[in-house]
Amino acid sequence: MDERLKKQMEFALEMDKEKGIGRQTYILNALRKENDAEHGWHLGLMTMLLAEYANEPIDIGRTVAMVIIHDVVEIDAGDTYAYDDAGNATKAEREQKAADRIFGMLPEDQGKYFMDLWLEFEAVATPEAKFATAIDSVQPLMLNNASNGLAWREHGVAASKVQDRALKKIKPGSEKLYEMVMDIIADNVKKGNLKDL
Amino acid sequence: MDERLKKQMEFALEMDKEKGIGRQTYILNALRKENDAEHGWHLGLMTMLLAEYANEPIDIGRTVAMVIIHDVVEIDAGDTYAYDDAGNATKAEREQKAADRIFGMLPEDQGKYFMDLWLEFEAVATPEAKFATAIDSVQPLMLNNASNGLAWREHGVAASKVQDRALKKIKPGSEKLYEMVMDIIADNVKKGNLKDL
Repeated sequence: MDERLKKQMEFALEMDKEKGIGRQTYILNALRKENDAEHGWHLGLMTMLLAEYANEPIDIGRTVAMVIIHDVVEIDAGDTYAYDDAGNATKAEREQKAADRIFGMLPEDQGKYFMDLWLEFEAVATPEAKFATAIDSVQPLMLNNASNGLAWREHGVAASKVQDRALKKIKPGSEKLYEMVMDIIADNVKKGNLKDL
Repeated sequence: MDERLKKQMEFALEMDKEKGIGRQTYILNALRKENDAEHGWHLGLMTMLLAEYANEPIDIGRTVAMVIIHDVVEIDAGDTYAYDDAGNATKAEREQKAADRIFGMLPEDQGKYFMDLWLEFEAVATPEAKFATAIDSVQPLMLNNASNGLAWREHGVAASKVQDRALKKIKPGSEKLYEMVMDIIADNVKKGNLKDL
């Protein structure tokens, strides 16, 4: 096998580890929590499905590529729960180091392509990155709602924190999905799944 | 929520079930088998990574979309193992019925879009469908090789069956990946992971 293909296949196999990175969101009627690979797949699908609700026109293929790779740094850096303040303080540094190693496994041109795509996602400045970020927040919210707020109740999450996150993460990418999510949050406050704080 | 968005979100939630559809391929150093959602994510990533080896130029975004949705029919029809001859005899009929129900959940335009994409994958006639099919076979082969042929040994799979499958599924999409795979198969015959039949 030539050197280029060898590097690409080693990277492809390294990616298998993403299936072992656990998240806090329950799936399948609360039977177990999902992992990063499942999450990435669900985001890819929801990006295609809901692209019409992006605030600005987006390149769907680029956005799907972004959501597929956005969590691979967690192979080294681990998943940081959205409402874990201590973990979030060191997240950026841990993830940059991970990105250097992981994308560094690839042939230079491809390593740069994926690194740039990941940095674009992290910067949340382009229409694609804004919509990818919105979908990345809508998906766990949808699943938390479907499990009657199980992960929220386990962590004692306050509605104001979820509202604040929706304002920062969902509204810039999609006003329409933000509106929907605010209704879901209000409904979960009523049900006692989110603390009315 | 308006009717269109409501249907789309019901579909997005229904898709969660794909995480519960088990496959025969071992992941993570043989600790457990993967599910359809993890598989779909891995295929999306490998399609982006290896697109340069397609026999004909492909639209990468379309091909990624195809691999992301290609297994959703298994929510109703279940996974059929590549070397299960009885299961494969009824597979097409079971999957068409599933596609009708699942894509029928969507607004008409989107249901048609995903149905057409799925039918394109199944027909394996376009450059995109040929390459998607190739990646769909390369990925489990890569994982089987990484687990020292565990799933092959469990099922007592003959090398000739894997070679025949590679010829039909991988070669039309990518000569280069077919060549690589033939080397992997030969190596696994030497190791006794595949029966030399």
